[in-house]
Amino acid sequence: MKSTDDGQSAPLNLAAPLLYILSNQAEAYQALLANSTLSNIELTSDASQATIVLADPPLLSKQLDDFPKLLWAQSTFAGIDALITPSLRQDYQLTNVKGIFGQLISEYVLGYSLSYFRHFSDYQQQQSEQKWQPHAYQSVAGKIIVILGTGSIGSKLAQAASALGFICLGVNRSGQMPPNSHFQQCYSIEKIDCALEQASIVVNALPSTQQTRHILNQQHLSDCQNALLFNIGRGDAVEEQGLLTALEKGWVAHAYLDVFPVEPLPQSSQYWQHPNVTITPHIAATSFPEQVFEIFEQNCHRWLNQQPLLNQIDFDLGY
Amino acid sequence: MKSTDDGQSAPLNLAAPLLYILSNQAEAYQALLANSTLSNIELTSDASQATIVLADPPLLSKQLDDFPKLLWAQSTFAGIDALITPSLRQDYQLTNVKGIFGQLISEYVLGYSLSYFRHFSDYQQQQSEQKWQPHAYQSVAGKIIVILGTGSIGSKLAQAASALGFICLGVNRSGQMPPNSHFQQCYSIEKIDCALEQASIVVNALPSTQQTRHILNQQHLSDCQNALLFNIGRGDAVEEQGLLTALEKGWVAHAYLDVFPVEPLPQSSQYWQHPNVTITPHIAATSFPEQVFEIFEQNCHRWLNQQPLLNQIDFDLGY
Repeated sequence: MKSTDDGQSAPLNLAAPLLYILSNQAEAYQALLANSTLSNIELTSDASQATIVLADPPLLSKQLDDFPKLLWAQSTFAGIDALITPSLRQDYQLTNVKGIFGQLISEYVLGYSLSYFRHFSDYQQQQSEQKWQPHAYQSVAGKIIVILGTGSIGSKLAQAASALGFICLGVNRSGQMPPNSHFQQCYSIEKIDCALEQASIVVNALPSTQQTRHILNQQHLSDCQNALLFNIGRGDAVEEQGLLTALEKGWVAHAYLDVFPVEPLPQSSQYWQHPNVTITPHIAATSFPEQVFEIFEQNCHRWLNQQPLLNQIDFDLGY
Repeated sequence: MKSTDDGQSAPLNLAAPLLYILSNQAEAYQALLANSTLSNIELTSDASQATIVLADPPLLSKQLDDFPKLLWAQSTFAGIDALITPSLRQDYQLTNVKGIFGQLISEYVLGYSLSYFRHFSDYQQQQSEQKWQPHAYQSVAGKIIVILGTGSIGSKLAQAASALGFICLGVNRSGQMPPNSHFQQCYSIEKIDCALEQASIVVNALPSTQQTRHILNQQHLSDCQNALLFNIGRGDAVEEQGLLTALEKGWVAHAYLDVFPVEPLPQSSQYWQHPNVTITPHIAATSFPEQVFEIFEQNCHRWLNQQPLLNQIDFDLGY
């Protein structure tokens, strides 16, 4: 790695792409770059000269016009919807990170599901009262988990959940099973009701697109019966008033929400104090810089060799 | 099924064994018997005549002398140590239930482990304060879970934990790997320290024997570093003062205790209000009557056909 900011650096390689890092974790990425094999990429602090940017999408979406020479943006997140809005430029290649979140999402969904079905909060309360009182329960084995989205995250979750005895149903655009699938069956998004009516657990892992916005509305949620609902996909998949109704009617027994249309979740939100809503601050899956950088590094080598990049986003599809 | 208590029943079959049911779930077992294929077993309410008893061990241990004709006792529990004490008769065949608890134990251990490593209680507290504050975390993938006991429960737990990315080490009497194992390595109980010093999680799934009593004492727990400790085996595996010291020294970060030497746990126990102890009322794995009865039914057919019974207990080994 060379630096254009540093008088001590090697002579400028005119052919080397100039990289700008725009991330809340910029320091970690700079350290990773310094120790990397990317000797043909130069770091710049001049946005106007950068051809490549490694960026958190919410930050880049506000500064896109500062990068007139931008050819390729590598997102540090899976969710790139901040960059998909039609008012923003789409004259560059956008890639995201995939394959590193499924494990973390599985931990989150399975951890909270087991906590719920095995009454952990009841036992916590009882312990504070020094009360010894077993509660009847059933195993999670054989319960049905419906996963909306059968990409990298949904497929990994299906694998982990199956190993614990859950039966996994998928919902995706085509209704086709993904390869090497742990789903027992997949439904197309038009037939989402057939999946939801069987669900003990519903997990939204869909990208944000026109078709998925507010997909978890009152109409669809009314197909559920006493289900747990997880939103670990994008905030706009859930229609807030529809979910509050579903909780009131018992269609949804408990909602676990990690993503919201506006983050941090506004203080005025009815979710905060709802007894059947669990709020987490967008931590179901975190971009660990080491893992993101590994993907970026692979893509840099492809870029330098003029090979097609991994995880390219189609601006029209929105994922 | 015939009944000797019921004037309407079929004529007494003098060859039929007489069964007494002694369980807190007796009604459920009677209903299962009534709908079963066990037409050659007769239910009796006269303990003095019974040759077979289907029993919860703590109840049977107090009434063993009421059953002078007892030939076979089928335990409804996995844990039969209440019947192993030397002062009690051992002149009958004792069988227990196996193979049905591993799933439930896995749900308990993995549910609490994920809750801990993913900071669920912090987020619960923050939500009550309407506070949005992510906390750094690591995936559980690659963490080491040491399972004491590699029988049916330990092996099933190793399978479920491996699927979530944990690395599983086993500790058992021989140090041999069980067949088709998901353990990466097994240690003999003499080398338990080599396993404990690597552990992020320690799970006791050992039966109660002379060798395992107080195995989790101060000396052994001092091999741990900031580990989670689960006792879902037998209550006497943990030496209480040793565990309290281990919690104080940070050898054990948090203890999840489901079984105790005396149950219900006495009100005087220091565990109740300890911030780093979670107490559950012996619910990690419950004997669901349907599953227990399935094993009993198989054993009855073996008994009637004079075949060796499944899951026989060796009174000398204690398991």
